[in-house]
This record gives sequence, C-alpha cells and structure tokens, in this order.
Amino acid sequence: MINKVMGIDIGGTSIKLALFDVTGLMLDQWSIPTNTANAGSEIPVEIVDSINERMNQNNQELAEVLGIGIGVPGPVTDQVVKRAVNLGWTDFPLKQMIENSLNIPVALLNDANAAALGELWKGSTEPVQNVVFVTVGTGVGGGIIVNGKILNGEHSSGGEIGHIPVQAEEERICGCGNINCLECYGSANGMIQTLNRLADETVVSNTKELFTLIQMNNLLAKETLKITVDYLGRAIAGIVNTLDPEEIVIGGGVSEAGQLFLSPLRDAIESYAFPQIAGNFRLRKAILGNEAGMYGAAYQVVSTLKEYAI
Amino acid sequence: MINKVMGIDIGGTSIKLALFDVTGLMLDQWSIPTNTANAGSEIPVEIVDSINERMNQNNQELAEVLGIGIGVPGPVTDQVVKRAVNLGWTDFPLKQMIENSLNIPVALLNDANAAALGELWKGSTEPVQNVVFVTVGTGVGGGIIVNGKILNGEHSSGGEIGHIPVQAEEERICGCGNINCLECYGSANGMIQTLNRLADETVVSNTKELFTLIQMNNLLAKETLKITVDYLGRAIAGIVNTLDPEEIVIGGGVSEAGQLFLSPLRDAIESYAFPQIAGNFRLRKAILGNEAGMYGAAYQVVSTLKEYAI
Repeated sequence: MINKVMGIDIGGTSIKLALFDVTGLMLDQWSIPTNTANAGSEIPVEIVDSINERMNQNNQELAEVLGIGIGVPGPVTDQVVKRAVNLGWTDFPLKQMIENSLNIPVALLNDANAAALGELWKGSTEPVQNVVFVTVGTGVGGGIIVNGKILNGEHSSGGEIGHIPVQAEEERICGCGNINCLECYGSANGMIQTLNRLADETVVSNTKELFTLIQMNNLLAKETLKITVDYLGRAIAGIVNTLDPEEIVIGGGVSEAGQLFLSPLRDAIESYAFPQIAGNFRLRKAILGNEAGMYGAAYQVVSTLKEYAI
Repeated sequence: MINKVMGIDIGGTSIKLALFDVTGLMLDQWSIPTNTANAGSEIPVEIVDSINERMNQNNQELAEVLGIGIGVPGPVTDQVVKRAVNLGWTDFPLKQMIENSLNIPVALLNDANAAALGELWKGSTEPVQNVVFVTVGTGVGGGIIVNGKILNGEHSSGGEIGHIPVQAEEERICGCGNINCLECYGSANGMIQTLNRLADETVVSNTKELFTLIQMNNLLAKETLKITVDYLGRAIAGIVNTLDPEEIVIGGGVSEAGQLFLSPLRDAIESYAFPQIAGNFRLRKAILGNEAGMYGAAYQVVSTLKEYAI
C-alpha cells in the first residue's frame, strides 16, 4: 500500500532515518554515521545506499514511499542547503541528488524547524496549528509554526530565537558574531558561564551539575537559574506577545531538568506576558527528544500531501 | 457587476467607510461620527443606515457588494469583538448585526491588523506575503502577516508589538498594566517622557517639537532619539530574527518624521539583526496613512474570496 513516508535527520555525527505510515506510526528506524570526508560529498550516496539496503532487508518496496523529508543542520532556501558548516556543504543541492537517485519527491527543511514540526505532529495531546518551539541546549534554537506550516523566512532564519538581542551589563560574543544574543545567556553554556562568573571560579562544567547544586539549595546556582529564566522568559514573552500561539514547547538538553527548570521559566514568561495572555498560555516540555527531527521531516511530506489532497 | 467590496475602519471619534472594486481601486469614501452613547449600541444601525443612504445617493446596488470588512479598535475572537474600550463594547456581535441588516458577509478584524493588511495590499511596490508592520504613534502597535494572512493569535493578541518587554533602569507602567513594555519607551509618549526626564524639565509636548530640536542639533533631543531607536531597534530585530519577513513597514505619527527617524531606526535594527539578515532586509515607511485600515478591511474580504476561488 502506497501510504509510507520517510523522515531523515542529518546531524554532525550521525544520520537518523525512519519509515512512517502517513498517520505518523513509526515502522522502522535506523542510523548511519555522518561521513564528513570530502566536504560531505559522500553523504547523499550513503543515504541512498542505506535506504535501498534497508528496504531490501525488510522486503519493503521503495515504490510504497510517497516522499522523503530531510532535516539538515543549516539554512535551506528554495530547497537548497545554503550552508551546513558541520558537514562542509555550501549551496548543496541535496534534494535534487536524492530525487535523481531514488525517484521519490524530497522536501528539505532546517533541523530545528523539523523538530518543531515533529512536536506539532506527535507531541501535543490535542491538535494545534500555531506553536512556538524553543530548544534550550548547548545553544538556544527554535521553530515557529503558523497555521500548521513552518515559518522558514526570507533568509531561512525563521525561528532563530537564540539570536534575539538581549540587554546585559556584560558583553558576551555570540557564535553568530553579534554581541549579547539570547543564546549567550539562556543556553546551557550561558548558564554555566553565568554561575562561574558569579562565583568567580569554575564551579560546574555542565548543567546537570548545576541543577544538582540547585537541588542542594546552593545560592549562587539558584541565582544563576533566576537570571537565566529571566532572559529566556523576557524573550519568549516578547515572541508570545507578538505571535500569541496556542502552545509553547520547550525542548533541548536543559529541559530535561523538568519542572526545576520549566516552572520558574513559566513564571518568568507569565510576568512579562501581555495581561490577556499571562494567566492563559500553554507551555509544555518537548517529548520526542532526538526523534523529533525524523517525525517532523516526515510530517513536512505528509502536510504537503494533505495540502494537495493526494 | 458584482465585483465590489467595502472596507470600514471604526475609530473612537469617526467611522471611515469606503467602497472598492476587488482589485483595490477605491470608488468612494466617506465618514460618519462615532456615536459612543449607550455603550456604542447605536453604531451598527448607524453604519447600516449610512451605507444604505450612500448607495442610494450614488445609484449603486448593495447587491454588487461581495462582502464588508470592518476594522475595530480592540481584540476580535471568533468574529466577535471581545472588547472595545473606546466604544463601550464587550463581546459585541457586530458581524452578526451587520449581516442580519444588510444580508452581505461581514469579516471583522482588529484595526492595527487591518492597517497591516492594507499596507500589504496597496503599500508595497512588489507583491509580498510576509510582513511585519509596526506603528509608532501615541503607542506602539502592529500587525504580523504570514503567508498573506494576518496572524490574529489565540487571544487576538497577535502583533501586539508594543507590549514586548524591554529592560530599562527606570520603571514605566504601561497602559496594559505591565511594567516596561516597548510602548513605554518606543512610542511618541515614551520619547517625550525620555527627553523631559533627561532635561529634568518639560522641554516638548509632542514629537514634532522634538524632531525640530533634533534638526537644530539639540544634544538631549538627539540622545532621546538614539535611546528610542535603540529600544525599537532591539525589539524589531528580535521579531525579525524570529520571523525573517520579506518587509518591515513602519507607520504611525512618528514615522512622518521620515528619514530623520527611519534612518537611525534602520541602523539600530541592523546592529541587532542576525548576520544573514542584517545587510539584507527591506524596511519602508507606511504610505497609506489613515486610509490603511479601510484598505486592509476590504482586503480581508478579497483574500477570503480568493481563498475560496469565488
């Protein structure tokens, strides 16, 4: 039966692949290492070979696959990967290459956007169409979904929540080259830097240690959390006051601290949100973890099929 | 020929009405005073009477009007006006009332959103679908358009740009009840307050006087402008980094200062924008002035007709 789609998430160290039916039931999942040799030029062939091999192994027909969605670690404009620094790609025509080899329609999207779509499709308990997805991990990233569609933007910078400018007494230089982006303060790295600076020595090297200190009622660690959620809360409230979404979803490594992190974050957003939103917004933790990208990449295909009522 | 639409903009002092053809050519325009007596309960009847009278005068047939769009000064949820403080309305079924009287489909939307749609339809030199519209006037307002549609939001707070929280040393209380919203610093009132505070006396009472001082090279007035565009630039860059629109449109009374205001504002946005956007975004002044709301209200009808290919 021709009712299958594939979702692929290309990361810097591994490529995750999954086969779904169009309702989002995951039928198969596997991964291959990311081969960054020769500026990532082997990656398309290795994806194609891996798909063919896996389908053969499982006695599945490629002809049953309606489309393949692929999340990539970089901006995508007009279905071309503009840049993927970790892979070595610049203006890389991945869609065309995979389509030529497999003769199946391919849809590309940015990996953070794919994760957001995954949470839209399979993470929410009720159907939603307007979601702000924020990942708080090594950096701060995100995806904006409006009317069920990812907002990619004119320069594929839609959802670059981590680069909202913040006001601070310090000057921290962001990876993007700007000074005092949200990511410099609201990310795992930002939190660690804040605590070490407050303590004037290296107290922790990761956020797990930091949250352990918080549970032990360490004052500087608690102050660090307060500062961090204040930066995040202010920026997220700014987005929420502008977009007024149905749901805010928080993912990424730091969200694994659970309510210890999410509860003060919710309070901070609430304190800055527009009054008619403040008591009245939905915030939840992302639940798909590192499978979100595969789900979302597959959903990009499914939503296109729906649109054209195929 | 049945190819006409109406656009109505209900303000606190007057109601502006216009007849357009579906391409956006304005065929007729008039206004009536806003009657706020009896909690604004006479307004629907007076709109209906005024339309009937005007059509009769001009020998035009109401049957030629495909639909009526109405911009209202308050939030609209599920096509009901939730609140319009200036008019005295709460949960006011304006759509139903006008439809029952005229037997023509009515679409309601918030007035700032209507102005944004008007600029999308008739203000841009080339077709755009993704626009951030910011009005800098007595307050700071706005509208967000994604894929050609206004983003109204879950609580009709989409585009409430004026209530993005900002960080400041002072504490200014916003009309919404929160402290230090963008509007407290980035609006005409905010600018005047900033200058008077810097000077420690009442120097100006309106922004026209303030811009005259700037042209005369007054240092405190120039400092005020710098502070103002910094607040606005940071907030708008935050939106732009998140939504990555095709165009930023600046309207409202303060925008009438032209390049004296827009040029430093552009510089401020550029300094805070994500690098791939910074050198590369379009910002323009709104051009429809107080006619934008009528155009946008009419376009709300036209875009619905297009969607259903009527």
